[in-house]
Amino acid sequence: MNLTALVQKNRSYRRFHEEERISAELLEKWIGLSRFTASGRNNQPLKYIGSVNRELNAGIFNLLGWAGYLPDWAGPTEGERPAGYVVVVHDKLISENRYCDDGIAVQTIMLGAVDDGFGGCIIGSVNKSKLAGLLNLPEHLEILWVLALGKPAETVVIEDMKEGDVKYWRDAYQVHHVPKRPVNELVYSIIP
Amino acid sequence: MNLTALVQKNRSYRRFHEEERISAELLEKWIGLSRFTASGRNNQPLKYIGSVNRELNAGIFNLLGWAGYLPDWAGPTEGERPAGYVVVVHDKLISENRYCDDGIAVQTIMLGAVDDGFGGCIIGSVNKSKLAGLLNLPEHLEILWVLALGKPAETVVIEDMKEGDVKYWRDAYQVHHVPKRPVNELVYSIIP
Repeated sequence: MNLTALVQKNRSYRRFHEEERISAELLEKWIGLSRFTASGRNNQPLKYIGSVNRELNAGIFNLLGWAGYLPDWAGPTEGERPAGYVVVVHDKLISENRYCDDGIAVQTIMLGAVDDGFGGCIIGSVNKSKLAGLLNLPEHLEILWVLALGKPAETVVIEDMKEGDVKYWRDAYQVHHVPKRPVNELVYSIIP
Repeated sequence: MNLTALVQKNRSYRRFHEEERISAELLEKWIGLSRFTASGRNNQPLKYIGSVNRELNAGIFNLLGWAGYLPDWAGPTEGERPAGYVVVVHDKLISENRYCDDGIAVQTIMLGAVDDGFGGCIIGSVNKSKLAGLLNLPEHLEILWVLALGKPAETVVIEDMKEGDVKYWRDAYQVHHVPKRPVNELVYSIIP
């Protein structure tokens, strides 16, 4: 797939074909892509905990918040939940500052998943203290993001944002609509 | 190019064939890729100032710090400087928090550049107040990163990190070596 198509296909998916499992090897392959990404001062302070284990997945699921703009939707139901997770942590023993390493890494990992026919969602609404307990993480590993991954079971479409309303929404056919600013709003200026 | 090759080719390049120019259209294409990236709460607070203008480029260049681990190297000399820049700013009128949007966007823009045969470096060592003045930016646009872009004129190789030494270095042949942690150091655990 060419890069533009890949970037466009990489939507935030929140419902999955849960029975389509992800292997530990595939998860490690996606994480491994992040090894080749830029890192502020080359510190590389990020580490990853992966799970494709049903029992652990269920425990992680209970500590996540889903789709803040869909108050009537409590998150994916059994059968449409993620088949795997990547918990992104910052090793504070390596460096205090992570610059923008985390965004660089998670985008790369997500592109890897999409390129292999999977997809998912970067979740920031996480009960971090309980998740650290569940995963037995030492104190120096600070949880940043949880990537929820699986075989997408929903259609996500992008549309031009209207009147500054950033809220995504679902239509009667369960299609998920995401308003995005047009490029001319992102470009403040280009000096030729 | 497949994704793995693209991610691996996307190194931090700091020396360029300066005469190989970048068009404003190409810069806008790469910025435009970021429209399709995830954004925390879908706020999309990032905006971009592009320059492929020689005079403005020279002004921007003077406000950047290059390669902190190469103290004997003052940065690229005339003829090997970037052909273009993208200044990434956070519009504080849109949202206070940018989550990890900036890393997601800059990685996507850089992959776009590499996919088109260019490349560059994410620079955080920036005289932000002077750059804001040079670009006549209003106060609500906070400068985050400067992407220095061009046709790479240097060889960058990755090698396994030894003894935790994160410093990149240049050999006698001017090849730039970047130590990266092996994947088994990035993966804290994967639960199958």
